[in-house]
Amino acid sequence: VARCPRLTKIRGPQIRNLLEAKDFILFDCDGVIWHGETAITGAAKVVSSLIRHGKNVVFVTNNCTRPRENYVHKFYRLGFTDVMLEQIFSSSYCSALYLRDVVKIRGQVFVMGCDGLRRELQGGGRPLRGGGGRDVKAVLVGHDDKLTFLKLAKASCYLRDPDCLFLATDNDPWHPLSGGRILPGSGSLTAALEVSSGRKATVIGKPSRFMFECISSQFSGVEPAQCLMIGDRLETDMLFGSNCGFDTMLTLTGVSQLEEAQEYRDSELAANHSLVPDYVVDSIADFLPAFEELDDEQSN
Amino acid sequence: VARCPRLTKIRGPQIRNLLEAKDFILFDCDGVIWHGETAITGAAKVVSSLIRHGKNVVFVTNNCTRPRENYVHKFYRLGFTDVMLEQIFSSSYCSALYLRDVVKIRGQVFVMGCDGLRRELQGGGRPLRGGGGRDVKAVLVGHDDKLTFLKLAKASCYLRDPDCLFLATDNDPWHPLSGGRILPGSGSLTAALEVSSGRKATVIGKPSRFMFECISSQFSGVEPAQCLMIGDRLETDMLFGSNCGFDTMLTLTGVSQLEEAQEYRDSELAANHSLVPDYVVDSIADFLPAFEELDDEQSN
Repeated sequence: VARCPRLTKIRGPQIRNLLEAKDFILFDCDGVIWHGETAITGAAKVVSSLIRHGKNVVFVTNNCTRPRENYVHKFYRLGFTDVMLEQIFSSSYCSALYLRDVVKIRGQVFVMGCDGLRRELQGGGRPLRGGGGRDVKAVLVGHDDKLTFLKLAKASCYLRDPDCLFLATDNDPWHPLSGGRILPGSGSLTAALEVSSGRKATVIGKPSRFMFECISSQFSGVEPAQCLMIGDRLETDMLFGSNCGFDTMLTLTGVSQLEEAQEYRDSELAANHSLVPDYVVDSIADFLPAFEELDDEQSN
Repeated sequence: VARCPRLTKIRGPQIRNLLEAKDFILFDCDGVIWHGETAITGAAKVVSSLIRHGKNVVFVTNNCTRPRENYVHKFYRLGFTDVMLEQIFSSSYCSALYLRDVVKIRGQVFVMGCDGLRRELQGGGRPLRGGGGRDVKAVLVGHDDKLTFLKLAKASCYLRDPDCLFLATDNDPWHPLSGGRILPGSGSLTAALEVSSGRKATVIGKPSRFMFECISSQFSGVEPAQCLMIGDRLETDMLFGSNCGFDTMLTLTGVSQLEEAQEYRDSELAANHSLVPDYVVDSIADFLPAFEELDDEQSN
């Protein structure tokens, strides 16, 4: 199917119509509802308005550095006071589900990632391995700000065993910091390990469909046509939405720019068209006038 | 040109004829003349016999962990007592030449590699950068057993500047250790940085032709048809030889197996045929009978 969105920004009445047509609103977090420890202006009000209007709101993040419990605290701290544990789908949580329910792993998991990822897996009852060991049945790569050469070498050795699974929480190449600086993401560390092992990792997070399967398993009756995926990264969020059959919306408060979406749209490579959003907004704060209209209608 | 070598091992008289036809014998080091700190039996005698018979012998190694001075010591320590500094072309030495003579770099070089690589570059008069700095004009990646996340993050940030060069000493994916263990190679770290920066590195070491340019610049009259490249890795040594127009010989004392060469030979992908050696020996010790015959002829 040819996709040729005009990539013009939508406004009040169009946003209202779109939200009325969707039951499930899926948000990426960083760059969409907050930047690090700062909420995007209006985002908390948008989320609570959606919930008040009976929408199912879920958060789908490739950030694997903290367990879901910590996310609830972060949501609360930044003013998203009505977000519950069950609405949060992080790549670390989905990795724990994958290990427990899909591959039903027996044996240890070697984690090249943050403590938060380790804690999420321990919550899922998985024995973990920090040091060496003969019983390692999976290597899981995430964002690891304590990466060392020794960890990379150990992981490479475990992966010599073809029965040892090779998983990555996500494939994000880098993450923005302030002042134009960046941090290498899980995708960077995964690439190092893919080269040293000669293998390809199974990616759990966006754009893989698996995160939608996690959501479907916990919310009954989720229909892709009823879903809107809102994110700031074309290569993860928009592609994830396309892969799942959702409508997609790019918000310009994060990584990707409108010009990049236009380049993908005009690309000769058909696969690039899956990265083009169906809708664009400057910020999800642009939703607020739509709720005012809805509220007016309801109070009339 | 279709290449269809039979991949049968060659012996005494064939080896003698081959050596008689070649003026330049290029050896890889690890897996060919030694394993770590142990010389391969007979290798030192082969090297001195070649030199004694008037052959130009050079060593072409992707190992970037020590400066050339240290290599001379290592050759001597392992019994290769007649090898001189001028015969040693390591990827660290060639990286220093590249920075000095090809790109004529002004400014600092951020090294993600071992102290030995840093020392080799300092020998070439290059200012180096361990910490941060605005004047970084090149990032050079090598084997780095002290890799940390912070180094990877700094290198990723420097590469945001499109004027900052991105170089790799080599692209070796991994290196063998004893007991089936491996160490990630420069190629693994380069892949991490390629993903986080969205750029491709310029590779200095084998299989890049640049190492041959370094040799040609220091030995007059090197003709590719007069060269034989002897190595243990199809993806680096044999491809390097093919890229330079040399005859190539695989020795089975290192990483690559005969079966892998057969797979490349039988591959449908024409590019894979450049990885197939022209000749195969079990060990370079197989050269020894050839010298006995040559010596007999000379003494008659």
